[in-house]
This record gives sequence, structure tokens and C-alpha cells, in this order.
Amino acid sequence: MIDQRFLPARFEYLIVTNVDQMVRAIREMAIRGAPALGVAGAFGMALEAVGNRHLSVAEFVTRLNNAALQLIAARPTAVNLAWGVNQMLSIVNQEGVAVDDLCPRLIAAAMQLADQDVETNLKMAKFGASLIADGDTIIHHCNTGSLAVVDWGTALGAIRYAHEQGKRIHVLVDETRPRLQGSRLTAWECEQYGIPYEIITDNMAGYFLRSGKVQKVFFGADRVAANGDVANKIGTYMLSLAAHANRVPVVCVFPFSTLDITIETGDQIPIEERDPREVLNLRINGEPVAPENAGALNPAFDITPHNLISAWVTEAGVIVPPFHENLSQYGYNLGLGKK
Amino acid sequence: MIDQRFLPARFEYLIVTNVDQMVRAIREMAIRGAPALGVAGAFGMALEAVGNRHLSVAEFVTRLNNAALQLIAARPTAVNLAWGVNQMLSIVNQEGVAVDDLCPRLIAAAMQLADQDVETNLKMAKFGASLIADGDTIIHHCNTGSLAVVDWGTALGAIRYAHEQGKRIHVLVDETRPRLQGSRLTAWECEQYGIPYEIITDNMAGYFLRSGKVQKVFFGADRVAANGDVANKIGTYMLSLAAHANRVPVVCVFPFSTLDITIETGDQIPIEERDPREVLNLRINGEPVAPENAGALNPAFDITPHNLISAWVTEAGVIVPPFHENLSQYGYNLGLGKK
Repeated sequence: MIDQRFLPARFEYLIVTNVDQMVRAIREMAIRGAPALGVAGAFGMALEAVGNRHLSVAEFVTRLNNAALQLIAARPTAVNLAWGVNQMLSIVNQEGVAVDDLCPRLIAAAMQLADQDVETNLKMAKFGASLIADGDTIIHHCNTGSLAVVDWGTALGAIRYAHEQGKRIHVLVDETRPRLQGSRLTAWECEQYGIPYEIITDNMAGYFLRSGKVQKVFFGADRVAANGDVANKIGTYMLSLAAHANRVPVVCVFPFSTLDITIETGDQIPIEERDPREVLNLRINGEPVAPENAGALNPAFDITPHNLISAWVTEAGVIVPPFHENLSQYGYNLGLGKK
Repeated sequence: MIDQRFLPARFEYLIVTNVDQMVRAIREMAIRGAPALGVAGAFGMALEAVGNRHLSVAEFVTRLNNAALQLIAARPTAVNLAWGVNQMLSIVNQEGVAVDDLCPRLIAAAMQLADQDVETNLKMAKFGASLIADGDTIIHHCNTGSLAVVDWGTALGAIRYAHEQGKRIHVLVDETRPRLQGSRLTAWECEQYGIPYEIITDNMAGYFLRSGKVQKVFFGADRVAANGDVANKIGTYMLSLAAHANRVPVVCVFPFSTLDITIETGDQIPIEERDPREVLNLRINGEPVAPENAGALNPAFDITPHNLISAWVTEAGVIVPPFHENLSQYGYNLGLGKK
């Protein structure tokens, strides 16, 4: 995998050969992005399978169930990680299959998830691009491009697709504190694709939204609750509030694997608290930017209530509010009242 | 003056001996904060007076009027700078006064402005503290403490006063990108006063406001229009939107010298655009956090519409909406309709 901790300074691959390394890569965010985590979780399981192919079935199944717990616990908010791991577990936990048969099935399943991801993302990119007009200026939060998935991406995939259609697009890239996935990764991807962009600090988005010069806000999702509330990278909520207050459409792009219909509202989604040093470890001109013993808080995600979101883009198409009701046509029976 | 560019790493004084140095100190933000800029502008004029005391009255007056233009242009948004300079110009432009008399008068006037500033701030601190309850958690934006004024400060002065009254207060310090006046200066001041705090990135404020754990939002102002709209450090608008959406009171603390009744609404206030390198010059672990040739935008202030603000704290007391009407009792005849 591309080690995303070093971009844009250095493009380095990280070789992962067992589940412990995968858990560490996920926790330290060498790999990140909800769909990428789904595939990483699946490959973590495949690696654990290969490493334990000499064991008895009983031992093998126990080992892989433990690996699943470890992987899912590595990052609690993005549901795709659990989704990818559970796809593999459903194979592991089939009764009466020999280890010699399970191993190749798990490898094939992980590879299929990766292929499916690209297919799904390309569909989302096309649907998402249909919402983008020639000349649009778009604020984009965090990183949702190829780096966040296997290829194409979610929100940035749609922007890239529109750009390849020849639409003239300008992206205002939220730097996305504290880990700066915007200025580090999204800006780097925009350069690869030739998409014109400028970096802004997250707190500037309101200024540009109020100026009337921004036509759309695009971002991805880490988990979507049954009522349509979205858990996404910290800052998404304030960005959505500012867009909503200025009547700028807010577009959230995610595959159905990000939808967690077992969770009724966003407030039930666990929010990962990360190391405060991620907030404090900046330097300007070599100087620290906070007192030596300063404390900090570091929630990695926030919840954007569904009423602030204008449209979902999924692999099945664009879905508009009321999300819960309009989802039912895609075969989801959400059992949340009304319908 | 304290050179605020090096805090919290180093506490250094900057000696300023002429108006050119003062203009540079203001532009490069060695000194910043609306009330501090007012006093700095006045002392810039006093220094120019002393340096030109050998000139004829006509030459002296021309020189000081030019110095005034330079000083006012150094930073366009905060009106206190122009206010402080204009206080001095009104002395300079008196007819029939000898240079030998003008010089000491200008020095005395600058010193009086500095003394007045402390007095004004202490009044604001007391009024502001009356809005703070024991146990409050307060989100504070940018730096509004002693460093932003001569002593005490505006918003942070009120928090410090409440703390000295024995109220148990917890401050969530917005780091305040891009210049990080929050994590660099406000956190440092909180440590000096013993006020418990944690640093958050600006885009986390919405998360904490939505959690129900924040009781107040406090900030200062760089210019307030006659209709009550507030120009303040970039990010204030998004913070105020998030507070308003969660019914958390938004308190804006500023002296009457920040009120610009010549400007009808916030949209007429000029917004300073600063060097994009302020957004891009961060390092994490010595690595750049944006592509080498990345562009950035850097508006230094934004406008918060008056309807998002719950209370003003001034040296005359707490003023609540409708601000325009309630201002009239303080001798302001704003001529904006209704009243």
C-alpha cells in the first residue's frame, strides 16, 4: 500500500505481511479512508489466513476470529472496516470447509472486494459528476480520492470524473486539521489529475461560502446512520452548517457499505478520540506552536445531521431527502417508523 | 513591545524607534490584536513626532500626516489602528501650535491612550465576567488577552476576571489557523493565569458545541459595523453559526473604539488578504504538509452577522440585541432608519 503518512513529501510503499502490521498501519493511518479501510480489513484477514494455513480448522477459525476483533477495533468510527472484515468472517465461519480450501477462498474474496471497490467508485464518480456544472467552485473536506479507496475515490472521484468530462472546476481544498489530509493528500491528488485548486484552512470555508463564490460542498462519509446522519472527518459538521446557512448544496458521496442500518441516529456512532499530539505536533519555522505541556482534545470525526445534507451519491444513484424514505426503493427495509 | 511572533517558544521584546519599524511590526504581526494596534498606531505617531522635532511646523505636519497614512494602511480591517492614529492626527492638525509644543502633547496623548486602554479593558472584563457562571466551559477564538491589548484584554480579560473571582472555568482554546494565535498566545496566557484549558482545532468547535458540554462562546472584534455585524479573526463566523445552531450564547467583547458607525453593514468592511505562505508554512516531523507549488488563499478576517451574536460586552456594559436600537442609549445616533 502507499504509505500516506509521508505524502506529499515522499511517495513510499508500505509492505504489510501479517495482521499485526495491518492493524498498526490502520491505527497509525498509513492507510485511511473508509472504503480503503474496508479492503485493508479484508486483506488483513487474508494475510492471517495464509500465515495460519498449517493449523487445524478449529485453531484456524479461532485465530481468524481473533484477528477480526483486532482489525475492527483498530479504528471504531468507519463502518467499512468492520464490513470488509465481516465479509471475510462469513467465509471463515462456514462449517465443514478445510483450511486448504478456506485460504484460497479468502484471498479471492479480498481481491474481489478490491475490484468491486473500483467498480463501485466509478459508478459513484459518474453519478456525482452529474451534480457538478461547468465552472463550479467546490469546497472539499478531508481526502476522498484514490488514496482513500482502491481507485477513483468517493467525493474526489466525482470531482475528478467531472474534470475528465471537460468541466472547468475549481476546488477549495480544506486543509483538514489536525492530520491535514486535505493539504497533504487531496492537494497532491489534484496535482496528479491537473485539477485547479487552492488550499484553505478549515475555518475559512464559511467566508467563501458567504461570498457567493462557491457552488457546491463535497465530502465522503465514514458511517451513515439509518436516519441519514453522517459521521465524517472532524469539521464536516461546521462546513455543512455554513453551506446550509448560505444555501450551497452539500453532497455526501459514499458506497452502501458505509451505511449502517443497525444504527438509528448519528449520536449512536462511536467517535474515535485520537492522540492529542496530533493537534500539538506542528512546527512553524522550527518552533513549536503550543506551550510545552499544553493539553489538547482530538475527536477524529463529527456527526452532521441529515437535514444539512442536500444529496447522497451512492453506487445506485443520487438519493435526495427524505433519505430514509427514499432508501426503501433500493431494497432497504429500515423499520424506522413511517415506512 | 513583546514580539508575539516567537511565543510560546521564546519571550522576546522588540524595540521600535521609528514609524517604519512600527509599520513593519504591525504588518508582520509582531504586535496584533485590535486594541493593541490602536495604541501601537498612536505610539508610531509619537515616535515620528520625536524623530522630526527639528523640522518646521509645515514640514512636521506633512511628515506626520504621511506617517498616519502608512500606519493605517499597515492592516486594513481592525478599525482601532485608524482610531488610535486619528486621535493623534487631531492634535497634529491643530492650527498655530509650535512643534516644540506638539511633540510633548503627542507623547502624552499616546501614553494616555495606553492608560485608558487598561481602564477600558478592566471595565469590559468585569462586565464580561458577569456573564460567566461557575463551572462554565467556554470556547475562545484567536487571542484577546493581555497580548492583544495593553493589559487585561477583551474576551480573555473577561474569562481571566471570572477566574480571579474564583469561578471554575474551563477554556477550549481554538488553535486559530493559520497564525495559531490560540494555541500559541491564548494557551500561553491561560498558563500564566492558571486557567484550565485544552487546545482544539477550529473545526472541532462544532463537535463540542453539539455535545452540550459548552456553555458560552467568547471572542473579540476587529471592527463592528453600525448594524452590529462583526469583523473578527477568520473562523469566527463558522464558530458563531455552530454556537447559534446549538443555542450556546455567543459573546463578543470590544471597546467602543472598535465600533465603526461610518460603516452600515459588515459587508462594507475591507477584509485583509495575507500571504498564502502563512497557510502553507507548517511542518510536521520536519516534513512539509502541502505540495511544493501549492497555492492557498488567506483572508485574515470574516464577517459574523449580528443575528448570530447574543451579547456585546463594552466598557459601558453588556448590550443585547437589537444592538442598533440599544446602542442609542449610549449617545450613538446611528441614523440607520427606525430610530
